[in-house]
Amino acid sequence: MAGNTFGHSFRITTWGESHGKALGVVVDGTPAGLALDEADIQKELDRRRPGQSGAATPRKEKDRVEILSGIFEGITTGTPISLIVYNKDANSSSYDKLRNKPRPGHADFTYMEKYGHRDHRGGGRSSGRETIGRVAAGAIAKKLLGAYGIGVVAHVIELGGIRAENIDPDIKTAIEKNPVRCADPSAATKMLEMIEKMRNCGESTGGIVEILTTGVPTGLGEPVFNKIDADIAAAMMGIGSIKGIEFGAGFKAARMRGSEMNDAFEVDNETIKPLTNNAGGVLGGLTTGMPIVCRCAVKPTPSISLPQHTADMVTKKEEIIEIKGRHDPTIPPRMVPVAEAMMAIVLADYMIQSGRINPDSILPEK
Amino acid sequence: MAGNTFGHSFRITTWGESHGKALGVVVDGTPAGLALDEADIQKELDRRRPGQSGAATPRKEKDRVEILSGIFEGITTGTPISLIVYNKDANSSSYDKLRNKPRPGHADFTYMEKYGHRDHRGGGRSSGRETIGRVAAGAIAKKLLGAYGIGVVAHVIELGGIRAENIDPDIKTAIEKNPVRCADPSAATKMLEMIEKMRNCGESTGGIVEILTTGVPTGLGEPVFNKIDADIAAAMMGIGSIKGIEFGAGFKAARMRGSEMNDAFEVDNETIKPLTNNAGGVLGGLTTGMPIVCRCAVKPTPSISLPQHTADMVTKKEEIIEIKGRHDPTIPPRMVPVAEAMMAIVLADYMIQSGRINPDSILPEK
Amino acid sequence: MAGNTFGHSFRITTWGESHGKALGVVVDGTPAGLALDEADIQKELDRRRPGQSGAATPRKEKDRVEILSGIFEGITTGTPISLIVYNKDANSSSYDKLRNKPRPGHADFTYMEKYGHRDHRGGGRSSGRETIGRVAAGAIAKKLLGAYGIGVVAHVIELGGIRAENIDPDIKTAIEKNPVRCADPSAATKMLEMIEKMRNCGESTGGIVEILTTGVPTGLGEPVFNKIDADIAAAMMGIGSIKGIEFGAGFKAARMRGSEMNDAFEVDNETIKPLTNNAGGVLGGLTTGMPIVCRCAVKPTPSISLPQHTADMVTKKEEIIEIKGRHDPTIPPRMVPVAEAMMAIVLADYMIQSGRINPDSILPEK
Amino acid sequence: MAGNTFGHSFRITTWGESHGKALGVVVDGTPAGLALDEADIQKELDRRRPGQSGAATPRKEKDRVEILSGIFEGITTGTPISLIVYNKDANSSSYDKLRNKPRPGHADFTYMEKYGHRDHRGGGRSSGRETIGRVAAGAIAKKLLGAYGIGVVAHVIELGGIRAENIDPDIKTAIEKNPVRCADPSAATKMLEMIEKMRNCGESTGGIVEILTTGVPTGLGEPVFNKIDADIAAAMMGIGSIKGIEFGAGFKAARMRGSEMNDAFEVDNETIKPLTNNAGGVLGGLTTGMPIVCRCAVKPTPSISLPQHTADMVTKKEEIIEIKGRHDPTIPPRMVPVAEAMMAIVLADYMIQSGRINPDSILPEK
Repeated sequence: MAGNTFGHSFRITTWGESHGKALGVVVDGTPAGLALDEADIQKELDRRRPGQSGAATPRKEKDRVEILSGIFEGITTGTPISLIVYNKDANSSSYDKLRNKPRPGHADFTYMEKYGHRDHRGGGRSSGRETIGRVAAGAIAKKLLGAYGIGVVAHVIELGGIRAENIDPDIKTAIEKNPVRCADPSAATKMLEMIEKMRNCGESTGGIVEILTTGVPTGLGEPVFNKIDADIAAAMMGIGSIKGIEFGAGFKAARMRGSEMNDAFEVDNETIKPLTNNAGGVLGGLTTGMPIVCRCAVKPTPSISLPQHTADMVTKKEEIIEIKGRHDPTIPPRMVPVAEAMMAIVLADYMIQSGRINPDSILPEK
Repeated sequence: MAGNTFGHSFRITTWGESHGKALGVVVDGTPAGLALDEADIQKELDRRRPGQSGAATPRKEKDRVEILSGIFEGITTGTPISLIVYNKDANSSSYDKLRNKPRPGHADFTYMEKYGHRDHRGGGRSSGRETIGRVAAGAIAKKLLGAYGIGVVAHVIELGGIRAENIDPDIKTAIEKNPVRCADPSAATKMLEMIEKMRNCGESTGGIVEILTTGVPTGLGEPVFNKIDADIAAAMMGIGSIKGIEFGAGFKAARMRGSEMNDAFEVDNETIKPLTNNAGGVLGGLTTGMPIVCRCAVKPTPSISLPQHTADMVTKKEEIIEIKGRHDPTIPPRMVPVAEAMMAIVLADYMIQSGRINPDSILPEK
Repeated sequence: MAGNTFGHSFRITTWGESHGKALGVVVDGTPAGLALDEADIQKELDRRRPGQSGAATPRKEKDRVEILSGIFEGITTGTPISLIVYNKDANSSSYDKLRNKPRPGHADFTYMEKYGHRDHRGGGRSSGRETIGRVAAGAIAKKLLGAYGIGVVAHVIELGGIRAENIDPDIKTAIEKNPVRCADPSAATKMLEMIEKMRNCGESTGGIVEILTTGVPTGLGEPVFNKIDADIAAAMMGIGSIKGIEFGAGFKAARMRGSEMNDAFEVDNETIKPLTNNAGGVLGGLTTGMPIVCRCAVKPTPSISLPQHTADMVTKKEEIIEIKGRHDPTIPPRMVPVAEAMMAIVLADYMIQSGRINPDSILPEK
Repeated sequence: MAGNTFGHSFRITTWGESHGKALGVVVDGTPAGLALDEADIQKELDRRRPGQSGAATPRKEKDRVEILSGIFEGITTGTPISLIVYNKDANSSSYDKLRNKPRPGHADFTYMEKYGHRDHRGGGRSSGRETIGRVAAGAIAKKLLGAYGIGVVAHVIELGGIRAENIDPDIKTAIEKNPVRCADPSAATKMLEMIEKMRNCGESTGGIVEILTTGVPTGLGEPVFNKIDADIAAAMMGIGSIKGIEFGAGFKAARMRGSEMNDAFEVDNETIKPLTNNAGGVLGGLTTGMPIVCRCAVKPTPSISLPQHTADMVTKKEEIIEIKGRHDPTIPPRMVPVAEAMMAIVLADYMIQSGRINPDSILPEK
């Protein structure tokens, strides 16, 4: 099956490998009339880039995006927007000795089982670099949603067992103040220490990313199979390294009583709305008008420098490998812009599908 | 959007309301050549039926399925299989006074916000009775998978805070021995007491259902957006009352180190396979050949008889309601056949899409 | 693949065989708020029924439709509408001797090649009775479009080589005055004579059906792959017995000069519109605001009572068969409601997809 | 809606405008293991290029394709193949004065009605240059099909009223011997004269392109809505300038008798097959094993230098325009590689969907 396209009325198709010529995305379904330039997209790609901080790999990726189509005189035309980022700085030789030896926790083994042939350099298509296309597309979705008063933000709420506790209510601003994208500055400091510790012992650790929305209208989603939380779950679980997702009270709901879990309704200025948000903004697959709240569990980076047991797929002999080189000891901080992008893509899709955003054009009618 | 269809090559479309004339499903994509009769499907519907035990509502639903198409001389023809269950025993009058007063935790409010008009009787389309279609379709998927050595089983691993600990390895048999479908008999006894307690105090509770597979081949799934775990997540989150899903180590992975989380590879009789299964059977969206393992958090039944705050959507006045009548104090035991059905549907779809099951016909070639 | 579903935002799934228990359709995506009852649908099914006239088979089909879901208090709820027609009056024994001998011009041979097993009774799934589901779904689409001022009409413009020449401008009324559904009364008389002649000599003949729309807005469709004429072509070619389709000038365009073919634009009351309609209402896959005009070539009924050469698929021996019994000597008159239905379904889909009809609800906002 | 993607298991997404930076396509679903390089694709793009002959525009397009992803060590990897062609030699100034004046027969008017904003330069997205992506993707489909013994060829059978009569049976070779791609050399000469005549008088003309297949197995397609002829019709009607399509006897079938139209079955070396091919290789939406035969009506090039009536969309005043510059006086010869590409794409999709080509990998199993 062709599994590189996501979405219906707002639809993205990503392509490209880690050490290939380029990576990119085709974004189909943006209505005509949205002002858009490369800076709008570059801004998000820069957030995705590994920084100089302790949280991320020192690899210097430039990742300059180029818009190839779909914009005329600074405004979207309704036709597909093709975005490309050429690869640079790729030294593939270090991967040669791992060519036939699947790295534990990576997709090397399953790709070989499925395809019998793969681009092993830097993980090929299964590399985190594939998310460049998602983040670029998400930048468009975010700008479109912004014009309708809808916002999306993600933040790291747990890393290496350290939990954010005093979360700054202005999450958007707070997360840009530290490289771990945690809105609790004191937890952020501890997380950075944890990362440094992991790096020093050749280890890695995971964490939890929370995604929140503002301004989402009521009644978005479909009530049976395309429940909006089901589609968001597919979007998030489609990101590498995510092993679980929960909405609102989530797994805690399993231990709650009905009277605790149910969000009562109140009347506020002639409008009915839930008083609390254990539902995480979704009831019966449709938005309640409260913020959508979901959390994703991110596994530890599979690339570690400690020795690991694997096997050679050609010789069928067991082997021990050590993965050298620059690797993030943790993924959640870099997951933030990716998770925001996927949430924005799902919401843009539903806003268009439901006619709340005109699918053809958002220009004022003459 | 039309959101009542699920799947690609094996595709189901469910329809029907709780107190309407009938409910049903059209199953499209079953290859020709599968022996199938109503008993195959009734068996699963009977598992879905509320029993006489403490775990479920005493409502006597008969839920007799009828096959209307797609079978000839006891064998599937490759054409759509239409399944119908007529509704009986539906007294809608008790719902009249709740018509404009959304029940907390239910989809009443969001349906009204989306559609402005709804069949409020018994929850209408948002009722758990909608899962009749899923379970019926799942019975076909299960039988098809069985012919290829693939099995699916679900069980309750937690209910009302009580955790199954000594799980009988023969889960399939064990869960049919108690009405909570828990494979730990002693935990099952405690769960039943908990349910009784909830019922007596007009409350409800949630739990966790685990779904497991056997015999799934390697390399099933698509590596970017149709990761098999992403599609399973969408399938499970598309069931009402599920608030979270995790695979393998799941949310615990967030606190693990890379060396703990990564499943090493070993060589076993010339075959390479993972030694452990923290991945839950999926790496990079593709199956590893190990069992797929996922767990779903089920919220407490939203219908409780304790008084709850809501508001009248017509008068815009706050109101207090008490939901009387027969209601399960907990959902997980009845979730078991539904979760099995959805897992089977996803797997059947991928087995067909990937050509592992011939999409046209499984009859031996002449 | 699962090929029994058509459409995106307005989506139909048909099921059922000619001599099975029942046939039906699930219509997904009708917005809430449309008044709808069985009479709305029965009306179209009655038009589809073979009449007593010379044009059609004397088989007495009752074809009573029943609505099973999706309507509450006479109004659609936005949930799937399941429609069922139980089969009666089916004597399958006459088909027994043809079980392994594919009828020329029918799908018997190709079904057996694909599936290796089929319900041969009355053509099974490949019977014209499958269109019951399409016509029933089309009745809903028509009623929905009618609320937005859009109309669809089809008529027979050629049959057995006889061409309609003086077409009554009130086609809708004119076609109900004769059993061949031709809007030229004098041609209709000749067509009926031709049909009688065909019946008498055990032969059959084909014809051409034209489909026209009124009130379609400009800009409907997608400009590259989902050109509205491409989707209409797929809809029409998906009806059995249709061997060709053309829009506007159609095949004649191949012999026209650019200056003849191009429709000039004029300004009429501040509105720009084409002066002529060689384009058939579509330019670049998008509607021009002029009527959509297309014509479908219908092959002669494949069931004829003259002897025909075939082969037994089991014995691999050549055989001669004669197809006895009641068969229409021509299909175009009965194609009229089916073609109208498919056109209405495509238009409803695009009206909803483009947000011109609110996908959720057409009820006035409170 | 997002309408720039075509296909299911073999799926293409095209992007780009005539005078934008580049055009391209993402091809998703090619199994791993196909040897493929740029020359395979360039070969087809060169066939699409306007030549120096009388049949086509003298514009010197280079159209060098570059493969950006999906190939490793000369072999496909199963991941998306991104193809790009940078635009050169584009002088947009000549289009400035037509910016608000829709050209008759072009999509200018309908794009403006739909989007309210468009890239008018060279027709923007509605330009014939968009077919670069289709032809490039088709080259991959063709190579894949070739490995399974399936071939596709198209040829011009009518142009400006001149009909090919003595068609060289080796069509593939014959069409490369003249710039009109007609397999009847003497008709080709007359067609060239007709084109010259059209050019001299500022006019244009249309024609008919026939597409043929070899080696297609029986039973390909789906029997209800995804009839293979319905999907081919959508594919062909999705190409600009095509106004009609017919299969086998096509519109002539409307005048045939059943006994003439029906293809009898014979037994040939233990295999049952049709004796004739009036069906055009398709019965009931499924392939018969005979060649698929279809014909497309191509309208005259809408760009002509004769004066034409239009209207200014801003001033709402009627205007007369003359379209100067280099324009093909006829399209059918250039349609040949595009029609071949679309046919190959549909067939590749069905071969993969049906499991006849392994969706994951065509490498021999180890």
